Amino acid sequence: MNTKRKLRTPFFVVNPKAYLYGEKALSLAQAADALAEKHDIDILFTVQHVDVTKIRQATEHIFITVQHLDGIQVGRGMGYILPEALSEAGVDATFLNHAEHQMELGELVKAIKRSDELGILTIACADSIEEARAIALLSPDVMVCEPTALIGTGQASDDSYKIETNKVVREINPDILMLQAAGISSVKDVEDALLTGADGTGGTSGIVCATDPADIMRQMIEKVVEIKEGQAVK
Amino acid sequence: MNTKRKLRTPFFVVNPKAYLYGEKALSLAQAADALAEKHDIDILFTVQHVDVTKIRQATEHIFITVQHLDGIQVGRGMGYILPEALSEAGVDATFLNHAEHQMELGELVKAIKRSDELGILTIACADSIEEARAIALLSPDVMVCEPTALIGTGQASDDSYKIETNKVVREINPDILMLQAAGISSVKDVEDALLTGADGTGGTSGIVCATDPADIMRQMIEKVVEIKEGQAVK
Amino acid sequence: MNTKRKLRTPFFVVNPKAYLYGEKALSLAQAADALAEKHDIDILFTVQHVDVTKIRQATEHIFITVQHLDGIQVGRGMGYILPEALSEAGVDATFLNHAEHQMELGELVKAIKRSDELGILTIACADSIEEARAIALLSPDVMVCEPTALIGTGQASDDSYKIETNKVVREINPDILMLQAAGISSVKDVEDALLTGADGTGGTSGIVCATDPADIMRQMIEKVVEIKEGQAVK
Amino acid sequence: MNTKRKLRTPFFVVNPKAYLYGEKALSLAQAADALAEKHDIDILFTVQHVDVTKIRQATEHIFITVQHLDGIQVGRGMGYILPEALSEAGVDATFLNHAEHQMELGELVKAIKRSDELGILTIACADSIEEARAIALLSPDVMVCEPTALIGTGQASDDSYKIETNKVVREINPDILMLQAAGISSVKDVEDALLTGADGTGGTSGIVCATDPADIMRQMIEKVVEIKEGQAVK
Repeated sequence: MNTKRKLRTPFFVVNPKAYLYGEKALSLAQAADALAEKHDIDILFTVQHVDVTKIRQATEHIFITVQHLDGIQVGRGMGYILPEALSEAGVDATFLNHAEHQMELGELVKAIKRSDELGILTIACADSIEEARAIALLSPDVMVCEPTALIGTGQASDDSYKIETNKVVREINPDILMLQAAGISSVKDVEDALLTGADGTGGTSGIVCATDPADIMRQMIEKVVEIKEGQAVK
Repeated sequence: MNTKRKLRTPFFVVNPKAYLYGEKALSLAQAADALAEKHDIDILFTVQHVDVTKIRQATEHIFITVQHLDGIQVGRGMGYILPEALSEAGVDATFLNHAEHQMELGELVKAIKRSDELGILTIACADSIEEARAIALLSPDVMVCEPTALIGTGQASDDSYKIETNKVVREINPDILMLQAAGISSVKDVEDALLTGADGTGGTSGIVCATDPADIMRQMIEKVVEIKEGQAVK
Repeated sequence: MNTKRKLRTPFFVVNPKAYLYGEKALSLAQAADALAEKHDIDILFTVQHVDVTKIRQATEHIFITVQHLDGIQVGRGMGYILPEALSEAGVDATFLNHAEHQMELGELVKAIKRSDELGILTIACADSIEEARAIALLSPDVMVCEPTALIGTGQASDDSYKIETNKVVREINPDILMLQAAGISSVKDVEDALLTGADGTGGTSGIVCATDPADIMRQMIEKVVEIKEGQAVK
Repeated sequence: MNTKRKLRTPFFVVNPKAYLYGEKALSLAQAADALAEKHDIDILFTVQHVDVTKIRQATEHIFITVQHLDGIQVGRGMGYILPEALSEAGVDATFLNHAEHQMELGELVKAIKRSDELGILTIACADSIEEARAIALLSPDVMVCEPTALIGTGQASDDSYKIETNKVVREINPDILMLQAAGISSVKDVEDALLTGADGTGGTSGIVCATDPADIMRQMIEKVVEIKEGQAVK
């Protein structure tokens, strides 16, 4: 059995969803890996399940993160994502219950339990305050609170929503790390997320849809590093 | 864009579902690969998505087959299985709509279409005569007709069910290859499936739950080879 | 066991989805019922399951239509819609596999079979040509072919899409009645749908979101009557 | 807007699932209604949605309870169960997230919220301790904790599981009423459930599959009455 990697704050998440795969995902993952090493900072990089091995073989520092897993046991379960297989392949973390891939509550419970057994960090998503409180009780390692209601409206979560979700989750379980990553498309958004109290931030379309994804990713990560060093000084 | 590999009959499918993964799956896959080479016969081997790369790197002859994919496009789709990523990783084929992973009809249509675009062979499952007819119209490359109603009853499909589903599907589209793989647990079952007219057969628990999975797999495949050679003689 | 009511063409479908319920649904249903009687024309009216009895008690001519049912048997199935209960309550017809409520293929097969056993007319929805062909093989009584891809684009299906889906379905099973109801918001749209060959048409938001739903419904139905009488003349 | 009916303890739940419908459900509901009046005790009776109106018209005392609703708003939502329609039809309560009808967490949150807005009591099901804790935070009115893992094993929840779930839920929210209803098939089971601390109990197959459902229901309810009166004495 693996033990979970320790995740240090502030951390950064690069989440290419299904925008990148294969060689292009590998290339961006290697750029992220170099930044993680250079700045000694923790970066989670999400990949297609089928790309785990190639990216694991070519990187050392990033947290290889899948975008979903199923809380099944070894046995039947045709077509589902078996946690043991991920663990053996070197996966460090998994997203769960993303707004684009919502889970039945019972499935979410099992997925967190199986990930805990196998040393896979869990990043659970909630799209309302009520859901955030309920999921916090399940003790995932990281939580993301993005109001789905805002998706497509062009609005990011405002500071008060971020501050409230940070507070609500930490009241229930202060060990859960808070990721604020809704609508992060600039270095300024990275700064705002961390300065309002998040433990980590990250991006999807703000990175992969940019003209130069590696460059905007680098700028965002350097901002995280700058804030981390500022915190260290204090 | 890839083109589909040509699948020759009679073929054999090793489907470990979520019983095997990682090193154990790799080891059985290598044994299957050696048999495919030795006998010049087509063998499909299903794997966890995360195991595709390692098994692809270590084998040359087997058809690397995933147990599910989603008919999504490059872009959003957090946590789903992107066909492009599979194709670039060297996946040859996919199961779809297995009784343990049933799909909405609209999703099945998209999954077949995307697989066709990317050169991935499709193996679609139906659990009733009516469903078999409807799916046949969608022109997957291979069909499996297993009556879910019998699952857990200890009965395999009887010959008349196999013969009827073969007939029904071929009337609609004679190019679809028929896989009869329900309850195959002995060499005799392999023989029965092929002699009643299937283009291929295969097994799950009959192989992976055996004392020596590689040995029973070898025996089954040798029976397929024997029948193939008998057909060639005629 | 009930036998299915005979559905005469051209027919009209009033589909308030979840826009109307209770007294307001009842009131519009009564207006539709009066028009069905006055013009001796077949009108299907969709209702919330919980509203079936009140509307059945207050109307005589409309086809009481539910928006979904589940192909379950008497027994377990907590929270699902039992076909026997609908049949005993006087339901005449059901929609199945609507774009807003897509069904697994196996579930759709069972739902059509159970409806046939109980004398409930089936109206099955397809959102692509491929899906339309597959569903046609399942022999529902009525089919609706609306390209989901267009939903939200402000475009109704164009004439060529309507004509092609009518043709494709009738080639497979000429007994299936074709309902063209995508984006019907004016009397002109009703005319276009019927003149391009549909057996029926109808509306949702074009009626329920109008200033005077009963009035626009009446105008649309009078247009259907006019076309019906024109056909009779010929 | 309706206000919720006050639910007094100990209460009893008759849950015919999809075993009964129409006239037979009505008949048993009337028997339950007479017992509720005679003993001045609260009885919840679950019905098919389509049967709500007839049973509401014929009863006065039982809590008309549906087996599921969807947390949707008035508008689109073809085929889903609109809470407003239930409320107007006189529904008193709803089950949610039953093991046979599990819900995505986000859907469960919305369903509880909409029910609260409309005065519908919520009875939420959990199939593990972790799930029970998470759901308790969502503040349904009643909770049922049945370990799905035991279903089909012929075992009812043992006393320790009942006592633990009662405790776990009440620690989070002491206002939630606890229903223990797994495997209740005799008067003795009713007694055990209440004496180990449940606020209510009830049955499905123990009642509807009995030779004389009304008689076993009466015996069970009389036991609840006896325990209630015993509590009043103390």
